[in-house]
This record gives sequence, C-alpha cells and structure tokens, in this order.
Amino acid sequence: MERINVALVGAGRMGQVHGPNAARMPGLHLRYVVDPRPDAAAAMAAATGAETATLEEALADPSVGGVLVCSSTDQHLANALQAVMAGKAVFCEKPIDLDLQKALAAQPQFAGARFVLGFNRRYDPHFLALKQRLDAGVVGQLESLHIVNHDPAAPSPHFIPTSGGLFKDFSIHDLDMARWMLGEEPVEVFATASCLVNPEIGRLGDVDTARTVLKTASGKLCVISNTRRSGYGYDQRIEAFGSRGMATAGNVSRDTVQALDERGATAAPIAYAFPERYAESYRAQIAHFAEVARGIAQPRTHYAGGIAALVLAEACQQSMCEGRPVQL
Amino acid sequence: MERINVALVGAGRMGQVHGPNAARMPGLHLRYVVDPRPDAAAAMAAATGAETATLEEALADPSVGGVLVCSSTDQHLANALQAVMAGKAVFCEKPIDLDLQKALAAQPQFAGARFVLGFNRRYDPHFLALKQRLDAGVVGQLESLHIVNHDPAAPSPHFIPTSGGLFKDFSIHDLDMARWMLGEEPVEVFATASCLVNPEIGRLGDVDTARTVLKTASGKLCVISNTRRSGYGYDQRIEAFGSRGMATAGNVSRDTVQALDERGATAAPIAYAFPERYAESYRAQIAHFAEVARGIAQPRTHYAGGIAALVLAEACQQSMCEGRPVQL
Amino acid sequence: MERINVALVGAGRMGQVHGPNAARMPGLHLRYVVDPRPDAAAAMAAATGAETATLEEALADPSVGGVLVCSSTDQHLANALQAVMAGKAVFCEKPIDLDLQKALAAQPQFAGARFVLGFNRRYDPHFLALKQRLDAGVVGQLESLHIVNHDPAAPSPHFIPTSGGLFKDFSIHDLDMARWMLGEEPVEVFATASCLVNPEIGRLGDVDTARTVLKTASGKLCVISNTRRSGYGYDQRIEAFGSRGMATAGNVSRDTVQALDERGATAAPIAYAFPERYAESYRAQIAHFAEVARGIAQPRTHYAGGIAALVLAEACQQSMCEGRPVQL
Amino acid sequence: MERINVALVGAGRMGQVHGPNAARMPGLHLRYVVDPRPDAAAAMAAATGAETATLEEALADPSVGGVLVCSSTDQHLANALQAVMAGKAVFCEKPIDLDLQKALAAQPQFAGARFVLGFNRRYDPHFLALKQRLDAGVVGQLESLHIVNHDPAAPSPHFIPTSGGLFKDFSIHDLDMARWMLGEEPVEVFATASCLVNPEIGRLGDVDTARTVLKTASGKLCVISNTRRSGYGYDQRIEAFGSRGMATAGNVSRDTVQALDERGATAAPIAYAFPERYAESYRAQIAHFAEVARGIAQPRTHYAGGIAALVLAEACQQSMCEGRPVQL
Repeated sequence: MERINVALVGAGRMGQVHGPNAARMPGLHLRYVVDPRPDAAAAMAAATGAETATLEEALADPSVGGVLVCSSTDQHLANALQAVMAGKAVFCEKPIDLDLQKALAAQPQFAGARFVLGFNRRYDPHFLALKQRLDAGVVGQLESLHIVNHDPAAPSPHFIPTSGGLFKDFSIHDLDMARWMLGEEPVEVFATASCLVNPEIGRLGDVDTARTVLKTASGKLCVISNTRRSGYGYDQRIEAFGSRGMATAGNVSRDTVQALDERGATAAPIAYAFPERYAESYRAQIAHFAEVARGIAQPRTHYAGGIAALVLAEACQQSMCEGRPVQL
Repeated sequence: MERINVALVGAGRMGQVHGPNAARMPGLHLRYVVDPRPDAAAAMAAATGAETATLEEALADPSVGGVLVCSSTDQHLANALQAVMAGKAVFCEKPIDLDLQKALAAQPQFAGARFVLGFNRRYDPHFLALKQRLDAGVVGQLESLHIVNHDPAAPSPHFIPTSGGLFKDFSIHDLDMARWMLGEEPVEVFATASCLVNPEIGRLGDVDTARTVLKTASGKLCVISNTRRSGYGYDQRIEAFGSRGMATAGNVSRDTVQALDERGATAAPIAYAFPERYAESYRAQIAHFAEVARGIAQPRTHYAGGIAALVLAEACQQSMCEGRPVQL
Repeated sequence: MERINVALVGAGRMGQVHGPNAARMPGLHLRYVVDPRPDAAAAMAAATGAETATLEEALADPSVGGVLVCSSTDQHLANALQAVMAGKAVFCEKPIDLDLQKALAAQPQFAGARFVLGFNRRYDPHFLALKQRLDAGVVGQLESLHIVNHDPAAPSPHFIPTSGGLFKDFSIHDLDMARWMLGEEPVEVFATASCLVNPEIGRLGDVDTARTVLKTASGKLCVISNTRRSGYGYDQRIEAFGSRGMATAGNVSRDTVQALDERGATAAPIAYAFPERYAESYRAQIAHFAEVARGIAQPRTHYAGGIAALVLAEACQQSMCEGRPVQL
Repeated sequence: MERINVALVGAGRMGQVHGPNAARMPGLHLRYVVDPRPDAAAAMAAATGAETATLEEALADPSVGGVLVCSSTDQHLANALQAVMAGKAVFCEKPIDLDLQKALAAQPQFAGARFVLGFNRRYDPHFLALKQRLDAGVVGQLESLHIVNHDPAAPSPHFIPTSGGLFKDFSIHDLDMARWMLGEEPVEVFATASCLVNPEIGRLGDVDTARTVLKTASGKLCVISNTRRSGYGYDQRIEAFGSRGMATAGNVSRDTVQALDERGATAAPIAYAFPERYAESYRAQIAHFAEVARGIAQPRTHYAGGIAALVLAEACQQSMCEGRPVQL
C-alpha cells in the first residue's frame, strides 16, 4: 500500500495532536508542516520527519494527497477551501467557521469533496460502542438523552472574545452528538445559562455554565449539561433512555487502582483533558481520513454536519438571549 | 418510654407501607385502622394487632396521640385538618392537596401543629448522605444539580384524571429534593414534555416524559428528568456539581452478584419500585414522626414545604402549557 | 396462622441479634428469655415484651414450640440437646461444640430433630444469589473458588483461649460456604498462617492471618483468605471460576454516594461488622427456623453440616501445625 | 537526540509486539529484523521500514546499539549472550532459559550489561500505580497479596512439551510480581494443581489450574491463582492487604458502555488477551529499554530477577510433585 503524502496546516494546540498521529499512521506520510510561525513549524517538522513549507508550496506538490487544517478558527474555512480547490482530500478541525452565513455560502464548493470534519467524538470507542448498542436496540425505542460535557478548567478570559461563545465553541460537540445519537433533527431548543466560574467571562459577554434542552418532532428529549470548569477532570458522559431500558457511556479513569480503609473507598481521577481522554478518537479519526483520502470510505463527519451543528448552536445562543425556546 | 397510640387513616397503597412500620416501631402503638372499606380496614387491623374504628372514634380517644393520613389524595387535607384540630400529631402523605389555593387557605390552621409531610426521600440514607457531604463542602460551592426520577412502569390510564398530572403527582418529589439540595429557591422554571410511553395518557391530557430546568437567583441550575416508564426499574439518582467537584447518589442493586464471560459482564437489576427502593426512608420517616409526636423533634418536612413544592409544580405545568419559562 | 412461642437462651452478643428478630417475626412470639445473668435477661425481656424464665421453666411450658440457643459456646450442645429432648424445634448458634468428639457422640440424639444450625451466610441474599446463579450454570462447570472473610478488628486477646482458635472460631463459616458452593467434599486441606495483627494472639498460641487451600476429589480448588483485622471493615466476598466464566458476590457499601475531584474518586466504606453486613441473613435465618418449627420446611443448615465443617477446621489446624497438607 | 539503531531477533508472537513498538519509539530506529524464516523476517521488515539480516550481520554493524531478543525460548540465552558479548544493550523476552542451572552458569557474563528482561507487568500503568500507592503506605504495613492471572484460553497441547510447564511458563510472571510487591523474598512455597481445562494437557504431564501460597520470613502471605482458560478474557488482578486497609488493581474493560433493563445490568467484556491488556506496558518497557541503551537509566527488570523467579517456579513445581511445602 503506497503511503499518501499529507500537509499539516497549523502546528498549534490541535496540530500537535493530529501531526504526530498522521506521522505514525500506516498509510500516511507527513510531508509538510505549514505554520506562519517559523519556530512552531520547524519544531513540528523536526519531531515528525517532515519539512516546512508554505501552504501554496504544499498544495502545488502533486504528490500531496491530503491536507490537515488545524489553523486558527478564523482560517479554517479559507484553508480548507483552498485545499479542496487544489483537489486535495481535507481534514478540517471544527468549527468550519464561527459565522454560519459564511459557512453556508461556501457549502456548494465542498460538494463532492473528500472532506472530514473534526467532530472527533464520533470516533471515540466508548461513544461508538454506545451508538452501536443503541442501533442494535439495547434500550428499545430511544426516547431521551443526557449529554454531559464538562471541561476541567476554564480557558483564559482573553480566549473568550474570539471563541464564538460557549455554544459555538464548546457545546457544538454535544449538539453534533445529539444529532448523531437521536437519529432525528431537533425542532425546538431551549438554553439557559449562568456565569458561575469566572465573573470575567461574564463581563466579556459570555457564560460558563449552561443547560440546553432539545426536542425532536417525534417528542424525543435531549438535555446537554455544560460547564467550563468541573474541578474534577474532563467529564464526558452520555445516558440514553428508551422504551426498554437505559445505556450509558462513562468516564475513563486514569488507572484501575482502588483502595479501601475505614474512611471509605478511593480511586483514581478521571482523564483530565481532551488530549488524554480522546487520544484514541483522534487516532481513529486520522485513520478514517486516510481511508477517505484513498477513496475507500465516505466521510463519517462532513461539511453538512458542521452546518447543522452551527445552526443549533446559534439557536441555543438566541434562546438564552431571548429567554424563550426557539423553533427550528 | 411509654408508647404513643396512633391511628392509621387509609389502608390502601401507602397505608400498607406506613401501617406495618408504625406497628413495629418502638415508641409507637398502632391502635386503630380507619378505612371506609370494611374489608381493607379489617385486614390491616388483623395483620398489625390494631382495631378498626371511624376517624371520629379514633380522634375521640384521648389515648391517641398521633394520626397517619394515608387516605386518597382528595381527603388528605380534610383528614389532616380534622386530626390537627383534635390536637393530634399528624403524619400526612404527599401532596397536601392538588389545589394550591385550598392548601394555602388552610395553612394558618396548621401553624404550630406537630405535622410531618410525607416527602420520604429526605429520609433516604443515600440522599441524606449526599446532602451531608454537600453541606460539608465535598463539591465546594454547589452550582448545579441533575435529578433523575424514572418510574419503572406507567400507572393505569384511569389513574391519570385524578392524579393532578405528571408535575403535581410525580415531579413534586423532585421539586422538593431540588429545594432541599440547592438550599435556595428557584426563580425560573422551564418544563417541556412528551407523551412517549402510552398514547392514552396523552389523550387524557397528561404527559409521561418531561425535562424541567430550574434556575435560582444566584444562577444555580437544576435539571429534573422524569419518565413514567423506565423499563429498567426505579431509577433514583442525584448528581451535584460544584466549584471543586461532583458528588452523586446512585441506584441500589438487588444484590452484589456480578458475572463475567466472553460476552461481557452482567449484574443484578436495580430495585424495581418505591416500596423496595425506599423501604428504609419510610421507616426513618415514621421514626421521625414518633419523635415529633413526642415533642422531642421539629418536623423536617412540613406544611410550608408542601406548599412550596406545589407552587413549583404549578409553574412547571404552566411553563409546559405556554411553551416558555415561568418566573416565580 | 397461629404464632409459635419461642424461648431465647442467652441474651449476649448473638442473643441480641436473634431475640429482637424473633420478637418481630410474623409467625413467632418471643415468650421467654433465659440467661444466668438476671439483668441481661430482664433487659432483653423488657425490650421484646417477653418474660424471664429458667430453661427448665421454658421447656416445661407446652405452649413453647421452639428454642433459640445463643448461650456461650461451651453451653451450645447441652442446651440444644436439652431442648431437643423436650421435643422443641431448636435453632442453635454455631459451632455446635469446639470438641469434635463430643459433637459426634451427641449426633444420634439429633436424628430427626427440627434443628437449624446458625450458619447464617447461607441465608445472605448476596451469597444465595451467587449460589443460585452457579446452580443455573452461569460459569459453566465450577472449577475453583476464592472466599474472603476478613474481620474488621481483632477480638480482645482474652477471648482467644476459649475461642477454639482461628479455624474453629472464624474460618468455620468459610469452610461451610466452601462445602455449599463447591457441591463436593474437600479431600485435601493445606493451611498456613501468621501472627501479624497482634503478637499477644501469637503468645496465646493462635494465629490471626491465614490462607487455606482445599481440593476436592475431582480437582476443584478453593482458597480461603482470613484475617482478624482488615482495617477497612468486614470484607465478605466470594469469587467462583468455571469453564465459561466467573461470578462474584461482593461487599455492601454503607451508601451509594460517590464524590469526584481532582485527586480522584471517593465512596463510602463497606459495612463494618457482622450485625450490619448480615442483618438480612439473620432475619432470613429466623424466618426459615419458623418454617422448620412449623414443620413446613426441612432445615437448610443442620447438625451434620456443623460436624462436616468442624472436621475441616480440625484438618486446617493440623495442617498448619504439621506444615503439610492433610488428607481427609 | 540521535536515534539508536536496534535489531529485532525473532519476528514471531512477541516480535510482532516489540518490533512495531521499537519502530515507532522516538529515540530508537528499527534497523534490522533477524529471523530464520525468510518470509517472517521480510514481512516484519517491510511493515517497519527495516532490513532483514543475520544476527551476525546485525551485531557486526557498529551503528547498532541494541538488540531485542524475541526468538524461541530455547534461543533466548544464546542470542542474548551473543549480543551482550558484542557490546550491545539487550532486551530479552522472559524466561532467560527454562533450565535454571544454565541460566545460573551464564549469569557472570551478564554482569554490568545493559540488559532488560521482559517482565512487562512491572511497566503496566495499573500495577505500577498500585505499587506506588503501596509504597506510599495506602494500606499501612503490607501483610498479604492475592494475585490473579487467568489466561483466556488454553494453548494448543503441542505447545505444552516445550513450554517448561505451567509454573515456569505462566506463573513466572506472578512470581516476579509477588517479589516486587512484597518487597521481601518468599521462604516457603506450596503449590497444588489440577488438570480441569483439557485432559490432553494432563496426559502430557502438565497442569492447567493451580493455586500457590508463598510465605516470607516475616510471615507475609501471597496466593497466586492461575488457570489456562478463564472463559471470560484475560483476568489480571492484584489485591494487597495491610494493617490499615486494602488496595487493588483491576481488569480493564473494553469500553465503558453499560446497559440496564429489567433483567439487570450488562457491560463490556474485559480485555481478551495479552497484546490488548498489556499494550501500554509493552510500549513503556521498550521506552525504558531505550533509556537503558542510552545509559541514562538502570534496568528495572534484570537478569538476577529472572533467576529469582525461576528459582521460585522450580520450587512450585517441586511442591506440587511432592505434595508438600518447599523451603527456600
């Protein structure tokens, strides 16, 4: 099997996850690292055996079959579009763009593209196993969901203004999971939120603690629980309820050691943050991208799904601001 | 310690829980059973060593110190009031009344009464342990709650018309738990619901699956998850989230046996319904009533708490009907 | 159903468990309390509504149908024999006697008696559920067992000289469980032990920490793990391994509350000691005795089983002393 | 950091674990694959970007700093010795040799060598976490251990004659874990065993189900539970008991999904076999070897430890054959 050359665009937080994964993936060869910061590009290139290049250089190389877009959020759409136009397979970190109108306007140009969107939780073995068991009827007819997504610690306040706000930046993963698990589109959204973690986040016009209720046309209900700071690690759980039972996907503990004394039982903390908790999902996502790039698999997470999640995130925002449920 | 004579009013579903508990409780003596159905009264009297009587006869006996009101819901208030007027200590099953105005109107007559309302979950050892750990600061500052209350199987549809509806009949326990755990009154309620379990319930104007979001003045959030039919037993859980962690009170399994084979692990079902799951809470509640009757304890669940939960239940109903959050 | 009058012999540690259970059991009436210590007898009688009497008086009362022998170990056999000779149904605490020869000599006189021996663990709902699942084939063909019986804290050293030693006093429960679960008699015993908890126990000629390996004719293996002091509560577990899987019965936690913070998870301690851990088994055992006394059930734990466990306990003792496996 | 060239000797079962790990390890470069079977060597070389070579060619290459010995058991010692003599750092799969006398005779030639023995469980994150917590005093003074090592399914009978028998082939891992966790050498060994899984194993003179009890000079006790076929996956657990509590390291489930219906709870199977269960330990072991090869770490598992475990395995064998405890 010949290896496909790929270029990594962006050697920042997510690039440091996806770059090494691509470099170690059988079937891929990380050929170029593109980053406007020369030091970041050079360090990633050295660690992975790649070369630094500009995006234009990388796209001009006919041996390059795929591009991993891990640039800053405001560059996602432009970089992805440029790569698609150059005929490359594209993996793009979420969100496509914070501006729904811009994302909608560009959508026709992605028609037919080999394009994988970074909704990595669909590749997580635990959530995947849950989805498979739900599809196999383990709870009978699915009726409701409870999705917990609690970050361990709040981001620095200066990230807030460019984040897109809690719903577009953070809840968007849960909105995508809701769509996937429910198997039916929400028609009503209600979101309510508070600023309990850091008052500075509130002063910047955002919230840090939210509860969202989605309802589908058939009456299925889904609650999303979000906080920017759990204080106990990266709480990532889904509970599904149906006509014959419930099924859950739970947290992963750091180790299996348990101790017991007169005061009670103690056990290890849960995985602290996304690189640890979702390591397997990131690898599986890049493996899937390799198959999409090779033309042997259809994208499991794609542009249209990114649009749909963004529409829901905007509805959450509107519901919170107007203090009422929003119909879709 | 002299035993206090008590009369049981109502030998139905809840009378069959509280009557035997009172009969076996050190400090109480079940003296009379009152029920308009002679057979039911006689059977309970025989099983507990009590005598049958009318309510008037029981209240006229000066040796009777307490009355357990377990009659049908529409008789709760009248029976309780009659017993209080006769100077007896009163235990009354929830709800005080389905009509908030009637309950409010009668409230002054309960001032100073030794009156215990049947919000039994406050006496459950698991929820009590959770409350104690929250009060001890185990999660830091409490920020949000998730309360799950799923009945194993839907009631017969002909119960629905006199039930008061899902919120007053069923969610009312959760609304009381929310008030207790939050330590702060909700100021906003949003409820949304579906009829997914039995369409007959919908034809009768009620719902069977609901999600309710409460918000307090300081921004604390509480979600209540209700269904009339879980399909997997009596799901009774609370999750509490705060500034430094989370704490949960979980389900009780029928036994501790676990098996493991190539297909996976299996374990016992959870307790199926309220008499099994809450057996200890019912005993503890009657033990508390014995202390209140004796004048050595103040009621932990009282008339005012019953009113407060009823106000919230009406707000849930209104929110659902009007499709918007209701301010309190 | 007429209630059977019973007499309690011995108002000490185990009498305080069985007396109140008999007093509250539908179908039994605790009529007499017999104890050489007048205060202990009177206190138990007052608490249960019984009268004090001598054993002779109680046995002479033709209305008495059953006797609960909870006297000191050296009186078990004499008291039980006297009651059986008087035609009463007898519940007797374990062990029948510390002297195997004495117990064997008396065995013929118990032929046909309605006699229930206090191997309470066979009535524990968790171990009973395990046994039922093993019988139903959950592990396929049973091949081996691991039995854990760890006391929370060592007894006072002055109990040691009259205890019969670790194997007869403590491991005897496990030897009975092994016989029950294995469904086949051990033919070889190896026991090795240390004195790690309290050197005073060693100076008195006993041990406090032991491991015993039993082997049956078909090659099934059973390990028993004993310590006099766990430091973490009353560890009572069984693991069963077979041709198709494993099944376990585990410890019971005091409550279901779990907390999670950055340092990890914490949960409640396990039940601390036998009155708490085995409360249900003690009630079920007396309920079974009521049925045996009434003649509607055959004893599930009987004299012959007591002898068999005693034979194994002596073999353990011999193996430990001689430093070699003992054949049976 | 310059990468160290290594040669893999043996592309069989364990070579297929260690070869790819070495190939992906930062700091190592898999240069040569040595295997007498040309196809096996070529396949591994192609998959890892290495070249095929003879052992002599690989050792003659001065750029080669390390050798991974994964040949058949009877070649371990000869291959390792040859590589050590050539001045290479050596990783060697366990056991060093099935013949204790041969291993002892060769020991002086390994003095000072950079030699890592493949007792991979010491690198497992769960057992490592347990060891760290024991060293931190989580159970107080350690008093006893229970080690469970159950293979999912028995090996083919034709593997048995060259396996060295259950104790040298299989229990040897547990004997090493016992030495590590106890922190004190056993002075007495008792082993008893049966052939319950496959009678063919018995006809070949081996056993498939064993229980071993170790005792140290200070009286610490350790039980090892072994079976060749669990029927439920790869059961790998350790329980440690001490003066103040217990601590355990448990099995790893394949995913966190749990389902609940009226019949009870179900969850995923545990990891099925060693490549899955111990994947992290194998990676960590090769990472450790890289540091040893580089001279920046002392071997955590070494030749002397291999000898010590072999001595214990022979004592187990002798105890079983002679039906008595063996003193060391």
